Amino acid sequence: MKLIGVDLGGTTFSVGLVSEDGKILKKITRDTLVVNGKDDVIRRVSEAILELSDEETPYVGIGSPGSIDREKGIVRFSPNFPDWYNVHLTEEISKRTGKKVFLENDANAFVLGEKWFGAGKGHDHIVALTLGTGIGGGVVTHGHLLTGKDGIGAELGHVVVEPNGPMCNCGTRGCLEAISSATAIRRFLREGYKKYHESLVYKLAGTPEKADAKHLFDAARQGDRFALMIRDRVVDALARAIAGYIHIFNPEVVIIGGGISKAGDVLFVPLKERVIDYIMPSFVGTYEIVPSPLVEDAGILGAASIIKERIGG
Amino acid sequence: MKLIGVDLGGTTFSVGLVSEDGKILKKITRDTLVVNGKDDVIRRVSEAILELSDEETPYVGIGSPGSIDREKGIVRFSPNFPDWYNVHLTEEISKRTGKKVFLENDANAFVLGEKWFGAGKGHDHIVALTLGTGIGGGVVTHGHLLTGKDGIGAELGHVVVEPNGPMCNCGTRGCLEAISSATAIRRFLREGYKKYHESLVYKLAGTPEKADAKHLFDAARQGDRFALMIRDRVVDALARAIAGYIHIFNPEVVIIGGGISKAGDVLFVPLKERVIDYIMPSFVGTYEIVPSPLVEDAGILGAASIIKERIGG
Repeated sequence: MKLIGVDLGGTTFSVGLVSEDGKILKKITRDTLVVNGKDDVIRRVSEAILELSDEETPYVGIGSPGSIDREKGIVRFSPNFPDWYNVHLTEEISKRTGKKVFLENDANAFVLGEKWFGAGKGHDHIVALTLGTGIGGGVVTHGHLLTGKDGIGAELGHVVVEPNGPMCNCGTRGCLEAISSATAIRRFLREGYKKYHESLVYKLAGTPEKADAKHLFDAARQGDRFALMIRDRVVDALARAIAGYIHIFNPEVVIIGGGISKAGDVLFVPLKERVIDYIMPSFVGTYEIVPSPLVEDAGILGAASIIKERIGG
Repeated sequence: MKLIGVDLGGTTFSVGLVSEDGKILKKITRDTLVVNGKDDVIRRVSEAILELSDEETPYVGIGSPGSIDREKGIVRFSPNFPDWYNVHLTEEISKRTGKKVFLENDANAFVLGEKWFGAGKGHDHIVALTLGTGIGGGVVTHGHLLTGKDGIGAELGHVVVEPNGPMCNCGTRGCLEAISSATAIRRFLREGYKKYHESLVYKLAGTPEKADAKHLFDAARQGDRFALMIRDRVVDALARAIAGYIHIFNPEVVIIGGGISKAGDVLFVPLKERVIDYIMPSFVGTYEIVPSPLVEDAGILGAASIIKERIGG
């Protein structure tokens, strides 16, 4: 058997043909064109699936942002798809492709991808965070995906790490997402320009409006003081949250994905140190903190892994 | 079948004969006398078990503080029993009583007690907190007890809720336990005496050294300003932590036990309000926050419920 994984994004979608051991054999990436409406998106995703199909691909896994009903295969709503309300996505795509289709939230698909093909392989207790525009979370505990009563759990980006801190998109102040996401970093860099306009960050970025996480970590790597100050705030918030997850889940591994995870040592070295400051002695040495090895293909592999999870590997 | 539950505490231990539906039929409470050494404690606990036994009681459940190995039935170490290291408790008690004995950490036993006999009945997603000398946590997710890789997870009292806040016993600053436990409240009241010695709290307590959580909530109920200030800090920290657990576990119910849970409306009314401030809109209305209905008998019933959990109710 081969697997078909669909990474459904607001800007582009990717469909991959994936071997059972997690190699991407073929891949199609196309513009999502949300403005054309949901029927058009569903039609073109189905076409891409059929282009990669053969008789060895009875199943399709889809990772979608937003709130989903995994049992019924429905996208309830998604900030990325403004006109999608209670879209019966698996049914629609199944009708057009003749395949059995499984749906999962993209952050949960990420942790499943790591469990089946990545840094979570062989582990039963995995905490995964994607640090991107927002902060997504996925948890495998005792071998099972944690979803909660209504399937909306594992919102790891919305724990308060700075009481009375910056306002988060969710309406609360000081959530992890309001401090350690790419969006939060861009905001810190815009706000910092007036006082720290001589920082290397702004030289690397060209203009303060363009300054982003990559410029921050590049400048921090070169010892820029402002960049290191912001880096420390981002790391400290992340460390407090991760220490909490370690206390709660006692995991084998904490996997960090998303664009920010590519920062390397300038992020991971102080992060690991700070987490130790925040955990109880009995937890020292019980876990690893690692960047996602799947990187660019985490979306497709996560989506493909939904099939393994549902039909039982 | 009837159940025997043992609530093993550092000061006293209680053994209860419990019906299958969670009624306590008989109960023995005796001093633990830790100073007499572990063999003496084990002998006297075994005697109490035999006093309550009949042919309908093949199983015993024990809830113990400290770090335990639930599979092997070992108490690894416990702050309450200084001379206990890797004590094979289930084996020792089984040898003396002829019964099959199960062991669980007391905070986990608490959530199991609520699941089988209390506010968690009929639920698959339960978060339980005991607010006492320390803050213990227990979680049932998708019907199963969350313990983690090494069985040391669900340490819900050790998430950071006040960065750079008061030092916690665990070595970190600003843990929930350092702000919302009975011990933390006593510390706040001792520290507050110099500035707020006219507060009703100290009149109720007699001396500042004796002022505790009960005096605090009694004074707050009567509108004492200092008491309300401390109450608000305790509630706010608790609300941030609980909002995090709601985002993480998407539970049906959050159950608060331990001595502090007896405070009633003066605690629960503001707590419920503050939690709503800290959660995402999609979680509003998905959960309940309730005091433990088992109260004084939570220890014995929690211990007895371990049997139901292990042999499958």
